[in-house]
Amino acid sequence: MAEKIIIDTDPGQDDAFAILLALASPEVELLGITTVAGNVPLSLTHRNARQVLELAGRPEVPVFAGCAKPMAVPLVTAEHVHGATGLDGAELPEPVMPLQDRHAVDFIIDTLMSEPEGSVTLCPLGPLTNIGTALTKAPEIASRIRRIVLMGGGLFEGGNITPAAEFNIFVDPQAAAIVFASGVPIVMMPLDVTHKVRTTRERVERIRALEGEFGAVTAGWLDYFERFDEEKYGTDGGPLHDPNVIAYLIRPDIYDGRHCNVEIETESELTKGMTVVDWWKVSGRPANAFFVRDVDDAAFFSLLTERLAVLASATSVAPRQRVGA
Amino acid sequence: MAEKIIIDTDPGQDDAFAILLALASPEVELLGITTVAGNVPLSLTHRNARQVLELAGRPEVPVFAGCAKPMAVPLVTAEHVHGATGLDGAELPEPVMPLQDRHAVDFIIDTLMSEPEGSVTLCPLGPLTNIGTALTKAPEIASRIRRIVLMGGGLFEGGNITPAAEFNIFVDPQAAAIVFASGVPIVMMPLDVTHKVRTTRERVERIRALEGEFGAVTAGWLDYFERFDEEKYGTDGGPLHDPNVIAYLIRPDIYDGRHCNVEIETESELTKGMTVVDWWKVSGRPANAFFVRDVDDAAFFSLLTERLAVLASATSVAPRQRVGA
Amino acid sequence: MAEKIIIDTDPGQDDAFAILLALASPEVELLGITTVAGNVPLSLTHRNARQVLELAGRPEVPVFAGCAKPMAVPLVTAEHVHGATGLDGAELPEPVMPLQDRHAVDFIIDTLMSEPEGSVTLCPLGPLTNIGTALTKAPEIASRIRRIVLMGGGLFEGGNITPAAEFNIFVDPQAAAIVFASGVPIVMMPLDVTHKVRTTRERVERIRALEGEFGAVTAGWLDYFERFDEEKYGTDGGPLHDPNVIAYLIRPDIYDGRHCNVEIETESELTKGMTVVDWWKVSGRPANAFFVRDVDDAAFFSLLTERLAVLASATSVAPRQRVGA
Amino acid sequence: MAEKIIIDTDPGQDDAFAILLALASPEVELLGITTVAGNVPLSLTHRNARQVLELAGRPEVPVFAGCAKPMAVPLVTAEHVHGATGLDGAELPEPVMPLQDRHAVDFIIDTLMSEPEGSVTLCPLGPLTNIGTALTKAPEIASRIRRIVLMGGGLFEGGNITPAAEFNIFVDPQAAAIVFASGVPIVMMPLDVTHKVRTTRERVERIRALEGEFGAVTAGWLDYFERFDEEKYGTDGGPLHDPNVIAYLIRPDIYDGRHCNVEIETESELTKGMTVVDWWKVSGRPANAFFVRDVDDAAFFSLLTERLAVLASATSVAPRQRVGA
Repeated sequence: MAEKIIIDTDPGQDDAFAILLALASPEVELLGITTVAGNVPLSLTHRNARQVLELAGRPEVPVFAGCAKPMAVPLVTAEHVHGATGLDGAELPEPVMPLQDRHAVDFIIDTLMSEPEGSVTLCPLGPLTNIGTALTKAPEIASRIRRIVLMGGGLFEGGNITPAAEFNIFVDPQAAAIVFASGVPIVMMPLDVTHKVRTTRERVERIRALEGEFGAVTAGWLDYFERFDEEKYGTDGGPLHDPNVIAYLIRPDIYDGRHCNVEIETESELTKGMTVVDWWKVSGRPANAFFVRDVDDAAFFSLLTERLAVLASATSVAPRQRVGA
Repeated sequence: MAEKIIIDTDPGQDDAFAILLALASPEVELLGITTVAGNVPLSLTHRNARQVLELAGRPEVPVFAGCAKPMAVPLVTAEHVHGATGLDGAELPEPVMPLQDRHAVDFIIDTLMSEPEGSVTLCPLGPLTNIGTALTKAPEIASRIRRIVLMGGGLFEGGNITPAAEFNIFVDPQAAAIVFASGVPIVMMPLDVTHKVRTTRERVERIRALEGEFGAVTAGWLDYFERFDEEKYGTDGGPLHDPNVIAYLIRPDIYDGRHCNVEIETESELTKGMTVVDWWKVSGRPANAFFVRDVDDAAFFSLLTERLAVLASATSVAPRQRVGA
Repeated sequence: MAEKIIIDTDPGQDDAFAILLALASPEVELLGITTVAGNVPLSLTHRNARQVLELAGRPEVPVFAGCAKPMAVPLVTAEHVHGATGLDGAELPEPVMPLQDRHAVDFIIDTLMSEPEGSVTLCPLGPLTNIGTALTKAPEIASRIRRIVLMGGGLFEGGNITPAAEFNIFVDPQAAAIVFASGVPIVMMPLDVTHKVRTTRERVERIRALEGEFGAVTAGWLDYFERFDEEKYGTDGGPLHDPNVIAYLIRPDIYDGRHCNVEIETESELTKGMTVVDWWKVSGRPANAFFVRDVDDAAFFSLLTERLAVLASATSVAPRQRVGA
Repeated sequence: MAEKIIIDTDPGQDDAFAILLALASPEVELLGITTVAGNVPLSLTHRNARQVLELAGRPEVPVFAGCAKPMAVPLVTAEHVHGATGLDGAELPEPVMPLQDRHAVDFIIDTLMSEPEGSVTLCPLGPLTNIGTALTKAPEIASRIRRIVLMGGGLFEGGNITPAAEFNIFVDPQAAAIVFASGVPIVMMPLDVTHKVRTTRERVERIRALEGEFGAVTAGWLDYFERFDEEKYGTDGGPLHDPNVIAYLIRPDIYDGRHCNVEIETESELTKGMTVVDWWKVSGRPANAFFVRDVDDAAFFSLLTERLAVLASATSVAPRQRVGA
């Protein structure tokens, strides 16, 4: 039976790939997309999520707007990585599918309370503000979440927005602290694993070759997105972070990691937003997360390209379904 | 025209006096009571709020349950001050009026968005979890709040739960930090002023003399409540904190204070929950709150006793209205 | 028998009064003066200490230069209070008595190790850098110190350099933390008591009337020194901080306070340098200091003026003894 | 001309190798050894340093005792790694050479002030308490130090005593912060490089084969020392940390690293003692250290074994010179 999921996201080109991979995979059932401020402001992230759904011909998936800024700190965004729209690299029409009326936080709470206990997985791809706020507003949801599989943090790779902190956790460390202290089973995809998943020339070209506008759009995103990290790290291709969250649900066998204690630093100016990972178990603190460190990156890209190909065919036959169009 | 208010509270005997004073005062219009975990757990605070409303014969005022624990730290309660029920000192029947279905956070947001901009005042008497969560979920409410008049913090009096921190702020420092950084006009009633408002023997007896069960119940609360601080500080009577919030709305002329900068300490183990008040303006930081330091305490008790007397008469004539009874 | 003391100081007009009071009092034996950076840089504080000794006709008291900056933070000085020289308000000639060769930290250590155990009291009037460094270099001195009677910190008065911190502790919080954790008996003279010791017009005039240049010089210092706090607090006269340390050694009966726990905040940006005083014993932490809160200020000024009068007479008869002159 | 060095150390088996390598190398001139509390208490570290010097037949090198505990925190030691003596793994006689009378901090200051400016390098192998205290007592030494080449910290390897902190920095973070803010040129040998220098079976056996008792003693140390990390990391051999400091002075060409900003975390409970290394230059803070990340470990072990062989021959011919023996 498919795993029911909610994707909580701030697209972002790599978020877009995560959404597309979920839509293309029968192993998961996407109940809805909740959006949050992060890579770009909230008003762009819910627009972008709808653009991605329309590109995939799936406007029936409901999209909800969530929190417009972090719990306790001013919003930091990442246009230097994602471009001014958050989805720079391809031109897409303004979405016509509606934004839902309900607040993202309430969709998360209501879904968890109405679906069978332990049946819904949360997949956060951005700052954890919506999840942290939902846990504050309704602590009773904690025991009803199947698991949280998230992109965020880092250990041996350090940070990307500060020397110690990865962007998603840094933007809302208080929310992250709430999530990691919640007792919910957590799987985290840190920079350590996503930096092993590089968009090399050859991999991008295979995606560009997909049918219809699909190939051009998605490869355009990759071209734009990899530029920042290629320059920073001097590599062929940049890391493709967020789709690893969905790939893990489908193919956990291609990932490897360790159950260990992860605490979120919220206080220190120097290390704020750091995921303090006790990989070597020196702290005596109990494990609260599965920290993923390795991946068969070839297998990941095979999976991603195969699944996108199916989606590309489908949308090519019945092009771009738009509500009201 | 009456000032529209929402009381956000964790009753608490002194919270009860604040509610009663609001109900007895034509200068304010109580739109609803939102409850939060604080002095006692949430399940008791919404029960206690309803008991107080029924005592006052006002079961039509809606009561909402809010957040069951602070945003980012475990809940600390104060049964050592308020007793196991939060309202120890008088026996009251279980309330029959209903708890509203809506979450307190949503009632706050919906009310602020539907009432005219700048017309609604928030009166928090407990930890600021509900207000902080509302501001996180819907930042757009900030500009619609008329003002926040709250009980919390301290300066020259120091703290009461730790050497540096007052209970309400200590229980949820992250929420307090959100409120004080929100840009909303804030009036704070700190320990510095509430410790000047003492329940002396003579004042308690005047309240005990009120008509009907009203006098016995409210004086019973005071007898119980003052016991803790009398013993700690060796005074005649204890401080009566929360009704100062409502009294300030009615008689601002009996209070005195200063506009100054107030920051909330959220990091340090030693000073967590402290309101760092720049009374002498040495920091250069802009004023964000009106810090009340002085009160004409005789005038306060006259006001309180007069207004309670009116309520006592009313309930004595038309005793204890209970929904469904 | 006289109590042997070392004064550790950063003069400072009020430091000068402390030195003069010690020189004028048979109850204490001043073994030496160690100087530190604080109110003004180190090169001025050791000069100023020697000027004060020469004014008092006591150039045989050895003066040592100590640490030029705090242990772990950049130096902050207070010329806005004390003037560019640290002793603004009176003209004194450059001192001719020598500065000792030995480092202040070594004088402190050597004296404590050579004098009988428990016989020497340290009297710090400035930042605690020298004392903290001595305790780090030679932890074995802790058990040999009779007691530390210091000026610093505050509770109900808050801070003076930041909303939470008093200047001496703020300038070197790490050193202060070392001192308060050392296990040595501590008496602290905080702002709470020194703000009750005001240099009113009438008190200053009694000092100005002292014989010879002595009256003019010391009253000149007071005129200058009180100006800053008079303007800030709108009072008649400013607080006279440091001589309370020496007066306490002579007349402990005119002071009142409480043994309680005092911790030094070293971490938080907002509260760094705060003395977190558990006056109401809510923390459960053991007492490590005697926090002085009250003083008979009339008795203090009588003592000070009487003792200065004796010194003024002596120096008037045998004017200004200068080594090599 | 040989580089004049002071080794500041808390032996420790790997410290012993650093001392021996320095004694065996004409490229450096060892002016003295200063000892500090760290791996084991101070009374053992100065004993151990003298045992190592006597083993090498060099009792004329002066040894000084320094600080017995960190600047601002209680001492943490590492007997679980080094054994109860700090030099477990070989039996050596009690040293007969004397401990110098002067304090280590004063030897460091006096040497730097008397030797030509910029001619002396400090080589700290343990907590930085002595260096931090010297810089506090006499800030004028900073500009006279040629450079500080130290073992400590980590980035991509994380910590070893906590998830975030390496032992030497963790034990005295305040002292480390002073050193890294001092403006002195710093080269740091973090866990990232020392973990690449493993005492494999074959390497240990080549050392065991050295002449006389020398081979047996030093191989005995390695056998003992590697045990802890072999078990923790599951590797063949453990990391050999401290001699990299000396090897770097002799053969900088076998090391590689990057100039970058390194800040010391002193505040946060979770990350205290962490070296926050801005390897990817995302912080905008100026470089203050050369962070070494790579080493030709085969070349290191060739150098070490060759040099020890010379020392072994020398001591074998003129066995164990002991003062007074």
